[in-house]
Amino acid sequence: MGKNLAEKILQKHSPEEIKKPGQIIPCRVSLVLANDITAPLAVDSFRKMQAPRVFDADKIALVCDHFTPNKDIASAEQVQKVRRFAREMNITHYYEGGNVGVEHALLPELGLVGPGDVVVGADSHTCTYGGLGAFATGMGSTDIAAAMALGETWFKVPETIRVNMNGSLDEFTTSKDLILNLIGRIKVDGALYRALEFAGDTLPELDAEARMTMANMAIEAGGKAGLFPVDQVTLDYCREHGRLGDHLLEPDGQAGYCMQVDMQVSGMPPQIACPHLPDNVTGVDDLEEIKVDQVVLGSCTNGRISDLRQAAHILKDRKVNKNVRFIVLPATPKIYAQALEEGLLEIFLKAGGIIGPPTCGPCLGGHMGILASGETCLATTNRNFKGRMGSLESKVYLGSPYVAASTAVAGRIIHPARV
Amino acid sequence: MGKNLAEKILQKHSPEEIKKPGQIIPCRVSLVLANDITAPLAVDSFRKMQAPRVFDADKIALVCDHFTPNKDIASAEQVQKVRRFAREMNITHYYEGGNVGVEHALLPELGLVGPGDVVVGADSHTCTYGGLGAFATGMGSTDIAAAMALGETWFKVPETIRVNMNGSLDEFTTSKDLILNLIGRIKVDGALYRALEFAGDTLPELDAEARMTMANMAIEAGGKAGLFPVDQVTLDYCREHGRLGDHLLEPDGQAGYCMQVDMQVSGMPPQIACPHLPDNVTGVDDLEEIKVDQVVLGSCTNGRISDLRQAAHILKDRKVNKNVRFIVLPATPKIYAQALEEGLLEIFLKAGGIIGPPTCGPCLGGHMGILASGETCLATTNRNFKGRMGSLESKVYLGSPYVAASTAVAGRIIHPARV
Repeated sequence: MGKNLAEKILQKHSPEEIKKPGQIIPCRVSLVLANDITAPLAVDSFRKMQAPRVFDADKIALVCDHFTPNKDIASAEQVQKVRRFAREMNITHYYEGGNVGVEHALLPELGLVGPGDVVVGADSHTCTYGGLGAFATGMGSTDIAAAMALGETWFKVPETIRVNMNGSLDEFTTSKDLILNLIGRIKVDGALYRALEFAGDTLPELDAEARMTMANMAIEAGGKAGLFPVDQVTLDYCREHGRLGDHLLEPDGQAGYCMQVDMQVSGMPPQIACPHLPDNVTGVDDLEEIKVDQVVLGSCTNGRISDLRQAAHILKDRKVNKNVRFIVLPATPKIYAQALEEGLLEIFLKAGGIIGPPTCGPCLGGHMGILASGETCLATTNRNFKGRMGSLESKVYLGSPYVAASTAVAGRIIHPARV
Repeated sequence: MGKNLAEKILQKHSPEEIKKPGQIIPCRVSLVLANDITAPLAVDSFRKMQAPRVFDADKIALVCDHFTPNKDIASAEQVQKVRRFAREMNITHYYEGGNVGVEHALLPELGLVGPGDVVVGADSHTCTYGGLGAFATGMGSTDIAAAMALGETWFKVPETIRVNMNGSLDEFTTSKDLILNLIGRIKVDGALYRALEFAGDTLPELDAEARMTMANMAIEAGGKAGLFPVDQVTLDYCREHGRLGDHLLEPDGQAGYCMQVDMQVSGMPPQIACPHLPDNVTGVDDLEEIKVDQVVLGSCTNGRISDLRQAAHILKDRKVNKNVRFIVLPATPKIYAQALEEGLLEIFLKAGGIIGPPTCGPCLGGHMGILASGETCLATTNRNFKGRMGSLESKVYLGSPYVAASTAVAGRIIHPARV
């Protein structure tokens, strides 16, 4: 029997022969990631282990992106702790200040993650890199500390759900809508400790960024990983971002799957995840009138240049509704500079938007756009748990950049074609 | 005996004849200001007074600029309270979200304050508008509530210190350096409950923005107001910002002053206020080597377009030191857009700076750049009290935009001519 994508990638990094899901295997890691929330905990664990040094100073990425520019004294001191550790260990890939971007947008952009890699990160959305054909997953800070010391971890080989996407995307439908639709169908625990493997004739329509948006939200269905095959689209993206020597990667013909899900892409309208779970999904036109106080465009899910372009396409020569705070957070300095060069920032600014620096910010209720009691937000982020973006009495709806833009203009959640 | 500027302006707004400093007078106000920190307190007091409505919905400005984009739930609910009050009272000049700028940069830009006005604000830097020839001063939130209800307040007519500035500014010396030098000489209580009145042959060299920078810091010497005469420079600025009908305004020839200070401007080097008071001032070249972790360019003191231009002049084709977080906060959306159009944002971005949205942010230790223990910052802001920008164990040095830029490049405080 052949191997699916998860098995093929893990096999490359493990000395043990993978025979079936459920098997526990040791595994070398390609990169270990932590951020300003989780790295301090990992550093503490690392010290307790009395590890003299990290396994490879080139294969650890520390990205201070969550509460930066430093929100308060506590967050400033978290970053300080990470900075000191990075200097002490000569960590090559330490990012803060003007170099920092949202980690899961930054690492692919820098060519630090890609096809066939095994990446572990002390952040649940580490699965993003599956969009480039990496087996990438989130772990607790203690496990990450061990991986930083050893360059190795262990996995239970996950079962895999095959997701067959067929048909063509409608004008205002994006990969964000596909993943929301999928989560709506399989629910937030539908892929618990399983890998999602994406396939079907829609794939060539999805560029690398669109794929990362989908892989990013695998965890919202409980997924251990969200995996795309490596095709020419992937290889082109990697080459463009300085990664050479990658190869095509496909699941074997006779690979095993625990489940198959078929998605008809054509005709699917923009999808909205309603409060308070990412699986509470409906088509945008099936919503009652939902007025919003705030719209957030950004995050590791939808803060890339293609996302900003989509929003700008709608916002050009339009104005943000006077009752809406429209917050745009380009996910990395490079994306910010690119958006400036392309005139996107000017469009957002003329529309009345607020442009912030790269930060996770409001996505996790961190800062830069927190909600008061009774307020409602439409966000391009990945989670709408109760209180996620502020008050327990606030509400978050999730949608695509197109919907974010049309909603910002209308002041209520609306189909981008109807604004 | 003639009247000085403070007396002339106050007389215009008071039914009582002003005879001498120390006299208590009632006074009509031209505009009443509060922000997201102080307006909620003022609203509470207003409710307690059981005032049915504000005295004039066109003459109150509520600007949510300190902790916005909302830093946390508490700040989001502060803004919500202000917003509800503004809607209930039909306040014309309510600013939040994409419209918000740092209050003391925003109101002059909108033409809401100008020559001969009496402005009271629940913010200590309300004195900024003295740069345009307004008697403007900070007050507590309860007094502001009364002013919102009555359109009237009372003042003790202040004594006035006349500051004669003569000579020409050196290449990298700015009005920020003049005011720091003055505060260094008269100390933080040198103008307690007194007005500063600026005069001398240097005046024509100071544009309206430069004057506002100086008036802004009058309070750092304890000043009740910092006043510039109204000349053609002022009138041109006002006309450009939509204020018509203003007139020249000068002190009378025989006006009374409690003190005269003479400043020789020519040859004055850039000035630095060292921790932990704005009067701990020295010439930049007289400092020992001071390494910095952060540089902040922004605030109601130095976040205007001329300030950004000065910093960009130094930063063009240079890089921010790798140990420095260089945070740029254009003070209003208009300044942000202008900086984008002029290519200044591109310069900051290419240099490795972080560009944030208009907010008071780190100036008052609010958010967007808070310091950890042991960290040092050079800021273009107005106060360097112990712990002002974060940890009690951090240090803040104050300087001009030129010095901010050169310091960001060098990683230590340095004369702009020597970077």
